[in-house]
Amino acid sequence: MKQIDGGICAPLGFKAASYAAQIKYKGRDDMAMLFSEVPCVVAGTFTTNVVKAAPVIWDRDIVNKYGKAQAAVVNTGIANACTGEEGMECVRITAKAAADALGISENSVMIGSTGVIGMQLPKDKLTEGAAKLAVLIERSAEAANRAAKAIMTTDTHEKEIACELEIGGKTIRIGGMSKGSGMIHPNMCTMLGYITTDADIAQPLLQKALSEVVVDTFNMISVDGDTSTNDTLLVFANGLAANPVIDTEGGDYEKFKVALFEVCLHLAKEMAADGEGASKLIECEVKGADTKENARTLAKSVISSSLVKAAMYGCDANWGRELCALGYSGVSFDPGLVDMYFRSEDKEMLICKSGAGADYSEEEASKLLSGNHVKIIVDMHMGEESAVAYGCDLTYDYVKINADYRS
Amino acid sequence: MKQIDGGICAPLGFKAASYAAQIKYKGRDDMAMLFSEVPCVVAGTFTTNVVKAAPVIWDRDIVNKYGKAQAAVVNTGIANACTGEEGMECVRITAKAAADALGISENSVMIGSTGVIGMQLPKDKLTEGAAKLAVLIERSAEAANRAAKAIMTTDTHEKEIACELEIGGKTIRIGGMSKGSGMIHPNMCTMLGYITTDADIAQPLLQKALSEVVVDTFNMISVDGDTSTNDTLLVFANGLAANPVIDTEGGDYEKFKVALFEVCLHLAKEMAADGEGASKLIECEVKGADTKENARTLAKSVISSSLVKAAMYGCDANWGRELCALGYSGVSFDPGLVDMYFRSEDKEMLICKSGAGADYSEEEASKLLSGNHVKIIVDMHMGEESAVAYGCDLTYDYVKINADYRS
Repeated sequence: MKQIDGGICAPLGFKAASYAAQIKYKGRDDMAMLFSEVPCVVAGTFTTNVVKAAPVIWDRDIVNKYGKAQAAVVNTGIANACTGEEGMECVRITAKAAADALGISENSVMIGSTGVIGMQLPKDKLTEGAAKLAVLIERSAEAANRAAKAIMTTDTHEKEIACELEIGGKTIRIGGMSKGSGMIHPNMCTMLGYITTDADIAQPLLQKALSEVVVDTFNMISVDGDTSTNDTLLVFANGLAANPVIDTEGGDYEKFKVALFEVCLHLAKEMAADGEGASKLIECEVKGADTKENARTLAKSVISSSLVKAAMYGCDANWGRELCALGYSGVSFDPGLVDMYFRSEDKEMLICKSGAGADYSEEEASKLLSGNHVKIIVDMHMGEESAVAYGCDLTYDYVKINADYRS
Repeated sequence: MKQIDGGICAPLGFKAASYAAQIKYKGRDDMAMLFSEVPCVVAGTFTTNVVKAAPVIWDRDIVNKYGKAQAAVVNTGIANACTGEEGMECVRITAKAAADALGISENSVMIGSTGVIGMQLPKDKLTEGAAKLAVLIERSAEAANRAAKAIMTTDTHEKEIACELEIGGKTIRIGGMSKGSGMIHPNMCTMLGYITTDADIAQPLLQKALSEVVVDTFNMISVDGDTSTNDTLLVFANGLAANPVIDTEGGDYEKFKVALFEVCLHLAKEMAADGEGASKLIECEVKGADTKENARTLAKSVISSSLVKAAMYGCDANWGRELCALGYSGVSFDPGLVDMYFRSEDKEMLICKSGAGADYSEEEASKLLSGNHVKIIVDMHMGEESAVAYGCDLTYDYVKINADYRS
């Protein structure tokens, strides 16, 4: 597997575009389109929030009913959540505007929205934007990059990646883009993520691979514990790589899944590191757990703790907060067995041994924590299972951004 | 029921003291003692965190084994959590020092600690402090107030209350003090809370009343979602009011429970309002829920959301965040039925009607939210059950306090 350029346009047959529809943001592109020259099978995972945005309901219906699509239209600024029937109508007319301009069925157009909850979208700007995007689409790394930028809200940079690998003697490519930043505590998947591939793979296997991969990637990140109304992750596979179709589990399926995992992990980590106001990526690896699920729960509890996050911002090796967060995770364990290490690029320190403080230098620990990527390694000494969760620190800027996000 | 002065010393026979043991803080009292002239029945609720501080283990054992005690010794600065066998030894010698000085058994001395996790306590200072406190105790409102101040960590003011009521023709009194501020998301009770009463009540009924009362008081507050290793709530009842002993459920028990509820609610709300860095108390009342438990879960989810809390700090009527938090609470409901109101002392505004935005003035809503006590009222329109949760806003100061709490 090799990383390549081109983002969502790296796989054969995929085009992208962005456009400044001025829905809420000014002076930047705020709509994006993704299009495949040929129909794709499509898999998706969506928010588990009871309050689901209109586009989530639309996309989920398409995945469940047809498992096929050919385009996606995304807007930022307004989430189209808590918007009732008017919000659903807005989705339908956007899909129709894009479909008409692209010469495909409206049931082939996925819709994504992110931004403020509870506001209605301006219908004219949205349908005009969808039609414009259909004219602008092209297959280039630049177009992919512009699309990745256009779907951002409070993200400080775009998140994209692409890779290629060989399956059945053919080169296949996977590209992806996502946006995150706030209201990030996915429970199925991330805020908005779009993955393209020219691999030929049956829809049920694509869905299976995606559902398995999100568990240890997008579902293992948290910025603020708030599970959004709009979380959507879609994978489009158009088959243009002409590999022997992947329609059974086996070597080819596994290879594809590993590559899909790497793409998702890259985007998930980028999202965690670029959490609202974040100054550093925090990784918590829990090993020696009795079950995989417990390892995940423990690791997520640590990176979700406001107190752990604030201490990390202050470069304070206040390890008791990590132990406390393990303790209220709901998992049963013996605190007297727990070892904990802090690790940076070039250093590892034992901080807690058998549930009590180890003999370490506070000064050196603080220095270690001052980097922009900190790992917390916890050994539960209960079994063989492990998991990694990804988060970020809690800073003044998180409060600032969210105290006046709407204004 | 009438509010009176005197805090934990208001009930007959209770004395208090504070002392500057210089355990970690300088220039302030950091140890407190509570003592009853006669033995008390004692009830308690404790943290559900798997990682339990040494004093929690000690106190829980006394409540479970004996159900009786006569004194409490509390220190701030260091939590005596994650301190292993040395931490337990520290509790034992402190209890012994106090017991010897007071002329009672060491198994009658409850111990409480709050502060940094993972550090060992200075044994000499602690035992010396315990002995000093035994000399200083007196029954006065000033002593009670000094004790309430001495148990604070990052609290900005002490929390105490007392009330009296008549039971069986006799006046009985209940007094209470607590400290909260950070790592506040009680799951059994608050950080540290001490309640005294001169009522004569059997231990099993005292425990039953306490366990029932915490569910809708201390367990309904959250500052930051972190359930502490040290949460402890104790009630001491010494019987000196000479009321007909409450040893069966009935009118007297119910009257006592109502008064205990009011005392706990007062302290809980004070703790929420004085959460670390908080500028306002946020109350969320969920009504029209299908079950009481669902009402509690929904209300707690709203006041625990970082995004709701940050928006409240910014006086931003971003009601979609409340609806989103209801949605990920784990409770199933129809978003299309939900109405939401914001309420201050003198105004109520309909913000969301049937799951979508109501026609309200952003300017007026922002003005309403600028007070220091904001109520969010949610009507689920699913049934008859209701619950209220209490929290606070998320401010720069919360981050500041917790980025360098140890230094």
